[in-house]
Amino acid sequence: MCQLLGMNCNVPTDICFSFEGFARRGGATDEHRDGWGIAFFEGKGCRTFMDVQPSADSVVSDLVKRYPIRSMNVIAHIRKASFGAVQLENTHPFTRELWGENWVFAHNGDLPDYVPELSGCFQPVGTTDSERAFCAMLQQLRETHGKRPSLEALCSTLREQARRIARYGTFNFLLSNGEVLIAHCSTELHYLIRQHPFDRARLVDLDVSVDFRQVTSPGDRVAVIATEPLTNNETWTRIAPGNCLVFRDGAVVEQD
Amino acid sequence: MCQLLGMNCNVPTDICFSFEGFARRGGATDEHRDGWGIAFFEGKGCRTFMDVQPSADSVVSDLVKRYPIRSMNVIAHIRKASFGAVQLENTHPFTRELWGENWVFAHNGDLPDYVPELSGCFQPVGTTDSERAFCAMLQQLRETHGKRPSLEALCSTLREQARRIARYGTFNFLLSNGEVLIAHCSTELHYLIRQHPFDRARLVDLDVSVDFRQVTSPGDRVAVIATEPLTNNETWTRIAPGNCLVFRDGAVVEQD
Repeated sequence: MCQLLGMNCNVPTDICFSFEGFARRGGATDEHRDGWGIAFFEGKGCRTFMDVQPSADSVVSDLVKRYPIRSMNVIAHIRKASFGAVQLENTHPFTRELWGENWVFAHNGDLPDYVPELSGCFQPVGTTDSERAFCAMLQQLRETHGKRPSLEALCSTLREQARRIARYGTFNFLLSNGEVLIAHCSTELHYLIRQHPFDRARLVDLDVSVDFRQVTSPGDRVAVIATEPLTNNETWTRIAPGNCLVFRDGAVVEQD
Repeated sequence: MCQLLGMNCNVPTDICFSFEGFARRGGATDEHRDGWGIAFFEGKGCRTFMDVQPSADSVVSDLVKRYPIRSMNVIAHIRKASFGAVQLENTHPFTRELWGENWVFAHNGDLPDYVPELSGCFQPVGTTDSERAFCAMLQQLRETHGKRPSLEALCSTLREQARRIARYGTFNFLLSNGEVLIAHCSTELHYLIRQHPFDRARLVDLDVSVDFRQVTSPGDRVAVIATEPLTNNETWTRIAPGNCLVFRDGAVVEQD
């Protein structure tokens, strides 16, 4: 399948440490070698780096590991192709504009029998079940809410959608509009929140650690969400299957 | 203002040579230092590298100069901000999906009085006149053609739009869906076509040359479009103001 990585913070933060470990799973410590992508929100803007090369061995992922882009919402994905060939148009995360905002989506799982009717406002470019589901979600958001609704109403619609679509297969996903990051767990998804007092963290996938006491301020708060825990000396919380968590400013603000 | 660079080819080709010269104009040989971006089509997929740093001095543009991404349609832009702050959401090229295809757009000029009515299907994320015009063009394309029309019908609609919008100011632009590249000249735009017999080319903006005889096959054909010529020993054709050229497979297939 695939693996997901997300970050949501209360101050712009770089993801170099987490991504360095995560990227190893794309062809080195794990089998997700069919491309990868990472999207960074910077203000309302969003830039995505992606490649069909394995993330463990990609010139572009080397840049992302070394170049500290500071962002409050990041979504990354490493792919093991199930639906759709290994091509750039099938590489997550996917981006679309809705209500004048960028929306970014990455999916882990399979939805083989989910064939929604798409009216045309959002259509998949590639052939993945994931992009098709993303288009269906945005279409329904747009039909339900002519303009950007309150966070509560938005999350309510998204939760209902997530549960409906998850009946067709496995639907772990991360979704962000640059303000909140929504994590839906269908089978496997973990998170942790780093905040004061900070400590040292050590990666699972390579012998690298960082002392967050040296690189943070007391008010910083960072939520990291990943399919499998990225560090082996911190306490990760497993999200219960069927649950949808909404992160804002590095904290869980809605959970259901 | 800004400067544009486009490439359209009959075989996947890297743009490293042209981009190396072009990127110098973003803060070294010229004043376009308010960010830059470049979009590469690869199959139906598209990836964009962008930065708010000057292209002459950006970690990401260094990668693009060194890493030969092979593409048949490329659009790049260096920015001197007029409308809209120096922020990622105001950085060209802009991308939207229409009819299940990626559409990429970059603009040189100002359209201060162009305030189209946008119905909601395409809305600007940033505050530039350029993205607003792009959204209006896509909206009208979608309203005029429920599904992707013939190339002839598509170009006819686009030409009519380009002329109408150009009445509001300066509207040099490059637009591509990965199959064709459309270049509209309002004031300043040049192109050349490299094909057999190939020769050596020398950049204007730095002391670099390449012998295309060493790196091409006889059947290769590459069109390069730029605001100002990038080489000083080749013959560039100035596109007449008011003209719209359609490039496919490295050749001009429509001109009006």
